Amino acid sequence: MSQDLCKLSAVEVAKLTRSGQLKVEDYAKALIARVEGRDPVVHAWAYFNPEVILKSARALDALPKEKRGPLHGVAVGVKDVIYTKDMPTQQYSPIYKDDHPQLDAAVVLSLRSMGALIFGKTHTTEFATCQKGPPTCNPHDPSRTAGGSSSGSGAAVGDFQVPLALGTQTGGSTIRPASYNGVYALKPTWNAISREGLKVYSLTCDTVGLYSRSIEDLELLCEIFNLVDDNPPPSTPLSLAGAKFGFVKTHVWSKAEPSVIDIWGKAKEFLTEAGAEVEEVELPKVFDNMTTWHRNILHMEGYSSFHGDYLSSPEQLDPWVIKHAVNEGKTTRKEHLESLDEIAKLRPVVDSIASKYTALITPSVTGEPPILEEPLRFTGDASFNLMWTVLHLPVINIPGFKGPNGLPIGLSLIAPRYHEQDLLRTSHAVAETFAKGGWKLQQG
Amino acid sequence: MSQDLCKLSAVEVAKLTRSGQLKVEDYAKALIARVEGRDPVVHAWAYFNPEVILKSARALDALPKEKRGPLHGVAVGVKDVIYTKDMPTQQYSPIYKDDHPQLDAAVVLSLRSMGALIFGKTHTTEFATCQKGPPTCNPHDPSRTAGGSSSGSGAAVGDFQVPLALGTQTGGSTIRPASYNGVYALKPTWNAISREGLKVYSLTCDTVGLYSRSIEDLELLCEIFNLVDDNPPPSTPLSLAGAKFGFVKTHVWSKAEPSVIDIWGKAKEFLTEAGAEVEEVELPKVFDNMTTWHRNILHMEGYSSFHGDYLSSPEQLDPWVIKHAVNEGKTTRKEHLESLDEIAKLRPVVDSIASKYTALITPSVTGEPPILEEPLRFTGDASFNLMWTVLHLPVINIPGFKGPNGLPIGLSLIAPRYHEQDLLRTSHAVAETFAKGGWKLQQG
Repeated sequence: MSQDLCKLSAVEVAKLTRSGQLKVEDYAKALIARVEGRDPVVHAWAYFNPEVILKSARALDALPKEKRGPLHGVAVGVKDVIYTKDMPTQQYSPIYKDDHPQLDAAVVLSLRSMGALIFGKTHTTEFATCQKGPPTCNPHDPSRTAGGSSSGSGAAVGDFQVPLALGTQTGGSTIRPASYNGVYALKPTWNAISREGLKVYSLTCDTVGLYSRSIEDLELLCEIFNLVDDNPPPSTPLSLAGAKFGFVKTHVWSKAEPSVIDIWGKAKEFLTEAGAEVEEVELPKVFDNMTTWHRNILHMEGYSSFHGDYLSSPEQLDPWVIKHAVNEGKTTRKEHLESLDEIAKLRPVVDSIASKYTALITPSVTGEPPILEEPLRFTGDASFNLMWTVLHLPVINIPGFKGPNGLPIGLSLIAPRYHEQDLLRTSHAVAETFAKGGWKLQQG
Repeated sequence: MSQDLCKLSAVEVAKLTRSGQLKVEDYAKALIARVEGRDPVVHAWAYFNPEVILKSARALDALPKEKRGPLHGVAVGVKDVIYTKDMPTQQYSPIYKDDHPQLDAAVVLSLRSMGALIFGKTHTTEFATCQKGPPTCNPHDPSRTAGGSSSGSGAAVGDFQVPLALGTQTGGSTIRPASYNGVYALKPTWNAISREGLKVYSLTCDTVGLYSRSIEDLELLCEIFNLVDDNPPPSTPLSLAGAKFGFVKTHVWSKAEPSVIDIWGKAKEFLTEAGAEVEEVELPKVFDNMTTWHRNILHMEGYSSFHGDYLSSPEQLDPWVIKHAVNEGKTTRKEHLESLDEIAKLRPVVDSIASKYTALITPSVTGEPPILEEPLRFTGDASFNLMWTVLHLPVINIPGFKGPNGLPIGLSLIAPRYHEQDLLRTSHAVAETFAKGGWKLQQG
C-alpha cells in the first residue's frame, strides 16, 4: 500500500485526499518512509524534516472538503534556491548553511494556496550555478549524476519520492535532469511563473521549472499557474496523423553522443509510423551565436547578481561564482548588450518558425547521465538546452528512450512562447509514441 | 552640530567616520533626532527603530579603521519592498503587516558589506504599484505628495533625514519622487544592480534606484555597485562649451504643465549661455506606442507576479493589484509579446540616438507635486518616465528649477545603456547650470 501511494500521480492523490478517501497524513507517511529508505543512496534532499511535513499534513486534513484546493495534500519538492517559510533555504552554499529566511517564494505561496504539501528542499548546485554537483545520485544508477542544477528535484520525482517538484533553469537545469531521471519536466515561457523569492543568477534566463511523472500533472500545474494560451487547443486528443514535427539539430549537434543520434532516428521513425510528417529544420546561421551570447549574458548578469555575496563572503564562494563576480572573462557591456538585443530580435523569429510545426523537437541532453567523478561530480552538458532558455520558449522533456546502459534519454518538445497548453496536448500524443523507445520509469 | 551632521553628504560622512573623527553612533543619534522631529509631519518611515540603528552603529564603531568600508556609517533608507534582515518588510500591504523574512536583499547585502548603516524602511505604495499613496507628505509642503512609489525614500533624503536611500522604478517611481523632493536620483541601466530580494511587479521594468543630495554621492554608489562604463569618461570636468544636448519632448509632451514648459525653455537658455548646443530631438513615430506597450507589459507581468498573493489573500489586496492578478483588461499573450519584442528592437535604436548627444534631456515630471487628496493620496503622473524605464537606459534627475508654488521641478538626463559614469560626469556640469533655476534644497 505504502509503495502504491508513492506511485500515485498528483492528479490521483488530489482526487483521493479531496474526497477524504485518503488522509494527507497517511499519504505523507508513505512518502516519508520512501524518502527515508532511499535517501542514503539518492541524496535528493538538502532539507527533509518529517515533523514539519506531518504538521502541514495534519493541518490539511483538518480543512473541510469545500476548502480543499486542486493540489490538496500533493507532495511537492522545492529546489533549495527557492525560499520556503517553514524550511531553511541553503543554496548549497556554506554562506547560507542553516539559513532560514521566513519567506515563501511567490511560486510556493501559489502552491500552498492550492493545498500543496511542501515536502522538503531538494539539492542544487551552489546558487543553481557552478559545474560542481551536490551529493545527489541518479536513482536509476547511483554511480551517475542526476543532472543539475535541479539535481534533487529531478531525482526525487524520478525515484517516486514525490510526484511533483520545482526546479529552475538558467541553462539546462530543469530539462537535463528530467532526461537523466526519466521524468517529465516543463520549462515554461520565461516569467510566466513568478520568480519572486528565488536566488538570482541571470534575470534574462532564470525560469521556474516543473517536474512530474505524467503530462496530466503538468496540465494541473499549468492550470493553477494561469499558463493559458491565447487560443487554447481543442480538448480532444491530438492525432499524430497530419501532425508535423520540425527536428532541430542546432549548431551544437556535434555534441550528440551515438545514443542520442540513435534515438533521433528512432523518434522520427516512430512519429512517421504514427502518421506524422517529420522534417529537419535548419535554423538561420545567426542562431549559431546563441552559445556565445548566452554565455555573455550569464557572465554579465552574474556580475551584478553575485556582487553582494562576493563583497560579504568571497572566501566562501565557489570559484565558478567568483569568476562571474569579478568578470574574469572581461566581457564588455557592449558584448552584453549586443547579446541581449540580438537574442531579443530572434525571439519572434523562432516563434514564427515553431508555429509552422505541431512542435519542434531537439535533444534534451548529449547522452545518458555521466558517471560521477569526485571531486567535481559534474552534472552534465547543457548545450542543447540553453538556446531555448534564453529565447524564452516553453520546453517539455518527453522521456521514452533508453540508452546503451539502460538509462533514460529524453527529447525536448518546443512550442512558441505562451503556447503551453498546445505543447501539453502535443506531448500526450508524442509521449505515447516515444514509449516504444524502451524506457519505463519503475520504482526501484 | 546635530543639524550640521544631517546636512552632510555620504562622501563627507564616510570621510569623518572612516578616519575616526566622527563616531557612527553620534552621527546616528543626530539623524535619529532629526527623524523624530520631522516624521510626525513627513511620515517618511514605515519602520524606524532607534535601538536597531544604534546597535548597528556601535558595531560599526567597533571596527578597526583598516576594515572600514567606503560607506562606513553612512545612513541609508531602504524602500519597504526591499528585504532587510534586521527590520520588517511590510510592502504597505495588510498581508505583510509586521512581516519580517530575515533576509537581506542583494543590494542591501552589498551596502552593508561596504559599511552602510541601514537606517529604516521607507514608505512605498502597496507592492510599489497602485495609485494610492502611503501617509508620506512632501517635506517642502506637507499638503502635497512626495511622489511614489518610492515616497519615503525621496522625502527622507529631501528632508535631510538620511543622505542616501534606495528606491525602485517600474514606471517613474524613483525619478518622479526625486523631482518632487528636490533631490538627485539615479535609475541605472536595468539589472545593473541586482534586484534579488525585492518584491516583483514587472521583471522587465523593475529597477533599483538610488537617491542622494549630491552627484558625488551617486558616484560613490556607482563605484560600489560596479556601474562601470566600457570606456570610462575622462576624470576632468566636462565643459559645456562644445557639449550638445538633445531635448526630447516625446509623445506625452501634452501632459507637461505650464511650469514644465517654462523650465524647458530656461534649461535650453542656461545651457546655451554656458556654451552648449541644444536641439529638439523628435523620436521616430514608433516610440508613440511606448505608453501602451509599457502598460501591456506591466499588466501581464503583474498577472504572474501577484498570482500568489491573489490566491492566498484576495480580500487584502488593493483593487489596483487585483486588476493585474485577474488580467481585468484582458491583455493577450500576443499583445504582451509584441510589446516586449518591439521595445527590445528599440533599445539599440534609442542607444544610438542618445549616443549622438552629450545627454538627452526630458521632463522628470508633469509639474510640481500634486496636492494630496484623501482617500487616494495620488502620488503623481509618471508619463515622462516610463518609456526610459522599459528601454533600460540610465536616467538621473537633476533638481534646480522651481515652480510657481516654490516647489522643485527636475529634469531627466539620459544616456545610452551602461553609460552611468558618462552620465554622472555630464550631470555635474548640467547641475551647476540648472542651479540658476531657483531651487535650493534647504533644511526645513
